[in-house]
Amino acid sequence: MIQRRTRIGIVAPGRAIDRGLAGQVTALAGEAAELVFHPQCFLREGHFAGPDAARAQAFEAYANDPSLDAIWFARGGYGACRILDIAFGSLGEAARAKTYLGYSDAGSLLARLARDGIGRVAHGPMPADILREGGAAAVRRALGFLTGRDNGAGIDPAARAPGRYAAFNISVFASLIGTGWLPDLTGHVLMLEDVGEYHYRLDRMMFTITSNPEVRGVAGIRLGRCGAIPVNDIDFGASEEEIVRHWCGRSAIAYLGRADIGHDVENKVVVFGAGSVGA
Amino acid sequence: MIQRRTRIGIVAPGRAIDRGLAGQVTALAGEAAELVFHPQCFLREGHFAGPDAARAQAFEAYANDPSLDAIWFARGGYGACRILDIAFGSLGEAARAKTYLGYSDAGSLLARLARDGIGRVAHGPMPADILREGGAAAVRRALGFLTGRDNGAGIDPAARAPGRYAAFNISVFASLIGTGWLPDLTGHVLMLEDVGEYHYRLDRMMFTITSNPEVRGVAGIRLGRCGAIPVNDIDFGASEEEIVRHWCGRSAIAYLGRADIGHDVENKVVVFGAGSVGA
Repeated sequence: MIQRRTRIGIVAPGRAIDRGLAGQVTALAGEAAELVFHPQCFLREGHFAGPDAARAQAFEAYANDPSLDAIWFARGGYGACRILDIAFGSLGEAARAKTYLGYSDAGSLLARLARDGIGRVAHGPMPADILREGGAAAVRRALGFLTGRDNGAGIDPAARAPGRYAAFNISVFASLIGTGWLPDLTGHVLMLEDVGEYHYRLDRMMFTITSNPEVRGVAGIRLGRCGAIPVNDIDFGASEEEIVRHWCGRSAIAYLGRADIGHDVENKVVVFGAGSVGA
Repeated sequence: MIQRRTRIGIVAPGRAIDRGLAGQVTALAGEAAELVFHPQCFLREGHFAGPDAARAQAFEAYANDPSLDAIWFARGGYGACRILDIAFGSLGEAARAKTYLGYSDAGSLLARLARDGIGRVAHGPMPADILREGGAAAVRRALGFLTGRDNGAGIDPAARAPGRYAAFNISVFASLIGTGWLPDLTGHVLMLEDVGEYHYRLDRMMFTITSNPEVRGVAGIRLGRCGAIPVNDIDFGASEEEIVRHWCGRSAIAYLGRADIGHDVENKVVVFGAGSVGA
């Protein structure tokens, strides 16, 4: 039996990508995987890659397509939370058999997929990472994970041991607190990263996150990278790691050290739920 | 009997003020009120007006001081949430007999005061508003309310009728969702305002707020002003009022129209809980 190429469906729950980007990523994938970009990826309506209904329908259609092995979220940028209540009504067996990969804004969808126990959910690079300097490495890491050809080499070393893991952007995770869309994170190692947020905002978000009674049931928190922190008019007086340590200490959550995730080309893969190095 | 002047204690749960500002506001108050600035207002530690413990102790000491009729929060800027768990342990009868006034970051303290049924809690101008162009009018409005000399003229007309009200900065309110510090807002008119947030962030915060099951018990939401919205690289495609209408509609919360509150000199007073025009 000849194993067919991994078929990966790409949808954009937040902002749009352009066809040039799709072409670059397709060229990079080469023979390793067949990439199927949903036309919705290229729609534009105001901030978003098309209206909420179009983004929800594209996600549902591809999730339910049995010829696709995985759903890869094209890009972040904000918008995924707007389809949480309208994109999950019809998901069936094909959706449960898939891998889902993305991060940043796409974390909202990872949260609900994990909450509902649908598919294999993973936090990791997206097609739009090709726009970063050296971004091909990030995209190759994602493709290696999605095709299983990397034998787990792309997974964050801190998320390889047996255990339960979840990874989120701090801003996205904070926005999900109290909404009912988060999975049960009891006993999970929660890995957090962010980009472009002032220290005082990181502090406020960590207040929200660590004050939540359900989050307090995690096994511990690991901090990924917080990139491109803007300079405030007054120095906050604590680094992002000091902030996370502070709030963990205050809420009796174990701080477990750093994670190898972030809005950058080094961003490693974290598989939600039970840790696993294989595909 | 000669009625003594209203004595107003001022503490800074977030950022510091300087003595020049205190002098300006004292001059403005004149004979109408005696302003007592806690020395903590002038402390500086990194971002904050002194360490968490100092800010918490100043608040508790003044709240418990029976010679003070009101606590007036000096300024916003971030920090009040960090004393929510350490500033309420010793509050007694004198704290319950007081009026508390502030907005923006101070909303965290208003939330817990209202949650715990302590004092008369109000959203309105702060001493630091004197730094705005035309800010004397805002400070006079606050003093008129705190001394009762304005006969309720400073209260938002939308919050004068019998009913229950609460008012918050959108960012601060969103940060309190899921933390356990918010009061029961069932049946309340919830009034929201913001400053300096991108439309996409306002949209995400309204997602969080309106997705919360407890918030869905409000009588409705009114939108104050959202000032100084930064220009995004791509137009969001909806105004702040359209954003709030959208999320209200999606979550079956009544949108009740505008409120006369905001980060500006027109910011009116909203008394939490039962509406009341008198002092």
